[in-house]
Amino acid sequence: MRTVFWEDRKVKMIDQRLLPGEFVIAEFDTVEGVAASIREMYVRGAPAIGAAAAYGMALAAYRSPATDRDSLLADLRRTKATLDAARPTAVNLAWATNRLLTLAERTILPNVDDLRSALLTEADALADEDVEINRRMGYHGAEIVPEGANILHHCNTGSLATVDFGTALGVVYACHEQGNPIHVWVDETRPRLQGARLTAWELMRAEVPMHLIADNAAGHLMRTGQVDVVLFGADRVAANGDVANKIGTYKVSVVARENGIPVYAVVPTSTIDLSLPSGDDIPIEERGPEEVTYIGESTVAPANVPVYNPAFDVTPHRYLTGIITEEGICYPPFPVSLRRAKQAAEARILAQRAERGKNRRAAS
Amino acid sequence: MRTVFWEDRKVKMIDQRLLPGEFVIAEFDTVEGVAASIREMYVRGAPAIGAAAAYGMALAAYRSPATDRDSLLADLRRTKATLDAARPTAVNLAWATNRLLTLAERTILPNVDDLRSALLTEADALADEDVEINRRMGYHGAEIVPEGANILHHCNTGSLATVDFGTALGVVYACHEQGNPIHVWVDETRPRLQGARLTAWELMRAEVPMHLIADNAAGHLMRTGQVDVVLFGADRVAANGDVANKIGTYKVSVVARENGIPVYAVVPTSTIDLSLPSGDDIPIEERGPEEVTYIGESTVAPANVPVYNPAFDVTPHRYLTGIITEEGICYPPFPVSLRRAKQAAEARILAQRAERGKNRRAAS
Repeated sequence: MRTVFWEDRKVKMIDQRLLPGEFVIAEFDTVEGVAASIREMYVRGAPAIGAAAAYGMALAAYRSPATDRDSLLADLRRTKATLDAARPTAVNLAWATNRLLTLAERTILPNVDDLRSALLTEADALADEDVEINRRMGYHGAEIVPEGANILHHCNTGSLATVDFGTALGVVYACHEQGNPIHVWVDETRPRLQGARLTAWELMRAEVPMHLIADNAAGHLMRTGQVDVVLFGADRVAANGDVANKIGTYKVSVVARENGIPVYAVVPTSTIDLSLPSGDDIPIEERGPEEVTYIGESTVAPANVPVYNPAFDVTPHRYLTGIITEEGICYPPFPVSLRRAKQAAEARILAQRAERGKNRRAAS
Repeated sequence: MRTVFWEDRKVKMIDQRLLPGEFVIAEFDTVEGVAASIREMYVRGAPAIGAAAAYGMALAAYRSPATDRDSLLADLRRTKATLDAARPTAVNLAWATNRLLTLAERTILPNVDDLRSALLTEADALADEDVEINRRMGYHGAEIVPEGANILHHCNTGSLATVDFGTALGVVYACHEQGNPIHVWVDETRPRLQGARLTAWELMRAEVPMHLIADNAAGHLMRTGQVDVVLFGADRVAANGDVANKIGTYKVSVVARENGIPVYAVVPTSTIDLSLPSGDDIPIEERGPEEVTYIGESTVAPANVPVYNPAFDVTPHRYLTGIITEEGICYPPFPVSLRRAKQAAEARILAQRAERGKNRRAAS
């Protein structure tokens, strides 16, 4: 099953806030609902957020009362602004809304219902591509994972962080499918515990050998030779290879490099933002204090304690061994290799579109 | 009020498992109870464990039915073994029981009641000395804290980790008392959240400016220039300066050095174990999975998830700027400076004992 999907003219998604205790499919039939689902983290993970936003654009088209193209485009532009504002750090959000809006702007269909249908087809294509891209990343990434490796993984980057399969966990799944007897150390990933709640749940279901650890234990494991490779995803990669990812990624990366352990970010090229020269330009979201002071129903700190709660940090590129994309592994100098990967992905998508067009023409 | 104290022939202590929600004084009138209080972390923090163990030895003497010195000594030896086995990493536990047993072995008092009384006096002296030692550490440590510094602190090392005042937090309190407008970033310190539950509680009561953070956020703060000095305590310091402390200390220290931020361990000389050449020889306690999977009443991970939960890690001495003791600040080479500090402390205790003896003789 997919993390985010379209059914009965609604955007549906696994409510990840409730896992692993409850498995609930949430439904949204308004743009405001989809924006709230992103902001409140029913859905999280850069690629999954992108897919939710793409379906949010399609939903806006179907919900719009517009009877002409210009009115529909105006509604889509407003929708894009609403969705883009939901969370600041993951670039896939604006990347996806931009892709849908651009399609609407460039497609000359006089009938607005045809345009609505084209937008939904594009959102479906984006979701399908995400799964295919993840499998390609998994395939490339599996090459750098030694036989029987102990992998340290931060946050959740699996099926739940994407439409299906995952980015860094996609590499794990690819290794597992290929019979590589890997073992995963799962960082619990405070404050929201995506590792404990989501990654542990996914890996147990997939029967991948693993242990859950407090984030604090990762250093001890690395220093004592119990980690062979570090894998994580990212919410945005700048042109120089600096990576914004879940808070704590920077600490893991520094300690890994100190211990000579290779570190890879695993990202679709849609997460690479060549418009930003470095990670200093990536906006870092701050979230509310209750993420730190409450766990479920339990308070874990004194009432009214002042809290600082950044959701992401930036790992400078010098701590990364490589960046694994669907077009292969990018190595330093990243400004060159990332641009090449991005170009290769764009060329491939154009070729696929041309192929689909040719097939459609041949069929009609 | 003291964290651990003797009253009505019982060992009494703040039940730290219940803070900050409830403030309860637990009472123990058996050695097994005191051992359990250490094992189950009613009391934690190396110096506080030491004081609890010392009072546990005094309790054993009062509970013993022995009518002759040899029987009492035999009971005390059994008690020492029971208490020492409660937790493996903090050296202060065996240090304290050893001090009490040695006193009993060396004191020639034919009346066993006099010996009982001498043991309680020694436990009280150990507790009094702990407070005095903490104030001396605070005084020495305050010298290296810049005006208005942002201090990053891991775990709890305050009044609750000691008999009173604290080790690393003692330095914080000393700065605060001297009017240095410091601010503290409080690592929540997973899995047991000593920072969120205890350090935040202490600092708010003392009105020291602070923010609670997820451990994962510390790297971001260090990288972005928001930390001036890192302070923590330790459970054992080896002869070469390697330090065993709460899990996560190693990660903090590596990232601090990477960012040119000074790192100090703050420990009484009783925590220095010259019998161990390096940190590789320090036993690391592993604790149960429920510390990671449960927070209060809430489950935060799938049922039956495999967990690895080391309670401590070792920070190699090369990451430490200095080790602050009651005898001053030890700098590299630590094998020399730590030995000198230990000798100075022993000389001071002998001089104090001689002084007390002289005063007693003058008074009688």
